[in-house]
Amino acid sequence: MTNTLEDNRPILEVCLTPALWDQHDPKDKNVVVIDIIRATSTIASALHHGVKKMIPVETVEEANTWLEKGYLVAGERDGIKIPHFHFGNSPFEFMGEDVRGKEIIHTTTNGTRCVLKSKGARNIVAGSFVNQDAIFDWIKKENRNTILFCAGWKDHYVMDDALFAGAVVRELADDFRIIDDSTLSAKLLYKHVRENMLRTVKQATHFKRLQRLGIENDIKFCMSNPQFDVVPIFDGVGFVKL
Amino acid sequence: MTNTLEDNRPILEVCLTPALWDQHDPKDKNVVVIDIIRATSTIASALHHGVKKMIPVETVEEANTWLEKGYLVAGERDGIKIPHFHFGNSPFEFMGEDVRGKEIIHTTTNGTRCVLKSKGARNIVAGSFVNQDAIFDWIKKENRNTILFCAGWKDHYVMDDALFAGAVVRELADDFRIIDDSTLSAKLLYKHVRENMLRTVKQATHFKRLQRLGIENDIKFCMSNPQFDVVPIFDGVGFVKL
Repeated sequence: MTNTLEDNRPILEVCLTPALWDQHDPKDKNVVVIDIIRATSTIASALHHGVKKMIPVETVEEANTWLEKGYLVAGERDGIKIPHFHFGNSPFEFMGEDVRGKEIIHTTTNGTRCVLKSKGARNIVAGSFVNQDAIFDWIKKENRNTILFCAGWKDHYVMDDALFAGAVVRELADDFRIIDDSTLSAKLLYKHVRENMLRTVKQATHFKRLQRLGIENDIKFCMSNPQFDVVPIFDGVGFVKL
Repeated sequence: MTNTLEDNRPILEVCLTPALWDQHDPKDKNVVVIDIIRATSTIASALHHGVKKMIPVETVEEANTWLEKGYLVAGERDGIKIPHFHFGNSPFEFMGEDVRGKEIIHTTTNGTRCVLKSKGARNIVAGSFVNQDAIFDWIKKENRNTILFCAGWKDHYVMDDALFAGAVVRELADDFRIIDDSTLSAKLLYKHVRENMLRTVKQATHFKRLQRLGIENDIKFCMSNPQFDVVPIFDGVGFVKL
């Protein structure tokens, strides 16, 4: 018991899908939203490439109201860009001069739901492989109880999100306490498949579903590690560079 | 698409915790309830050692009503045998002459909840490492859509249940289709930790919680593989030998 009492390290916990969010309490904690393919990877990349703010919204209808106010709007349904929107959801669309300094409305069902559910958290940031080192450093520097919130797909568990959560846990295992089996399992899963991550994710059904949409290059990008030095933080409206 | 249409193998799916059960539909499927430490291990062992029927009930109150009817009743709360019950919950208590041919009321919160939730399933069986080969063979012979239902702990994911689910998936991966990431992850987790399973489970918080209750020998037994050749099947009231 003495060891437990003396261990003042903050707690790192993984929420495997939004359907399990009721088992977590974000109050005064930092929350890292993880939607690897593609929302949080796109957000990190866009901010790195000069976009001023990525504003997540859940529905096309909500995006339309922003569109009417004159905002740039990005979105797809079933892998096809919504015709009257300016952009689809590919990270490659938010790298050019045309988006620099802009605020962009970004329809993303699973990721937006996580942001809404994280209300009450101290900070909400967007984590992904493309900005992983910046996220590792930020969590460690904050030294605060942290929830790694896997966005999943329609409340279902998806492996790519769990793998990134596992990467964070593995990196920070010395500095944080792990007190539940979800967190330990994510760490072990990442530890054992990290050498073959793209190959493993290609076996996953989430990947297969997305592959049918013809976004393979996006997926390769989202599973890569260009090390964008950016922590996208939610300012109450959208994600901005910290 | 041709391959998909031609693949007539049944589906094998893992439900990681009862909190995610709504994402599964047991209708016409076989359900394998998995509560490694200790309910389903105890049930398999007890039937192997001659107990006639293990009747799972959720609450002490419910067990009391059976006790009043003259049944043998087993149960613990916080690791301590309930004083007026005949047995605790250790698998070692159901191996002797005194239980042979008997029907025993067995309080088990997480496992019982899974049985209740599995209503509508074609068959409900109890799976564990102690009878794993019998379970592998039965699922394969049935050749039917099957859900591996991890009982968890108070709706939380626990690693020992997921590991056994992963063992089943790994064994039957050629004969069944895997169509979701939970199932693939359980398989990978088992694949990579199976050589060090007891050591891995000892890191798990579920184990630590149980260790505090002083049931280490029970846990070692539940993680071992004596190969009891028994498939405990639910007959509407309790688990009996198939």
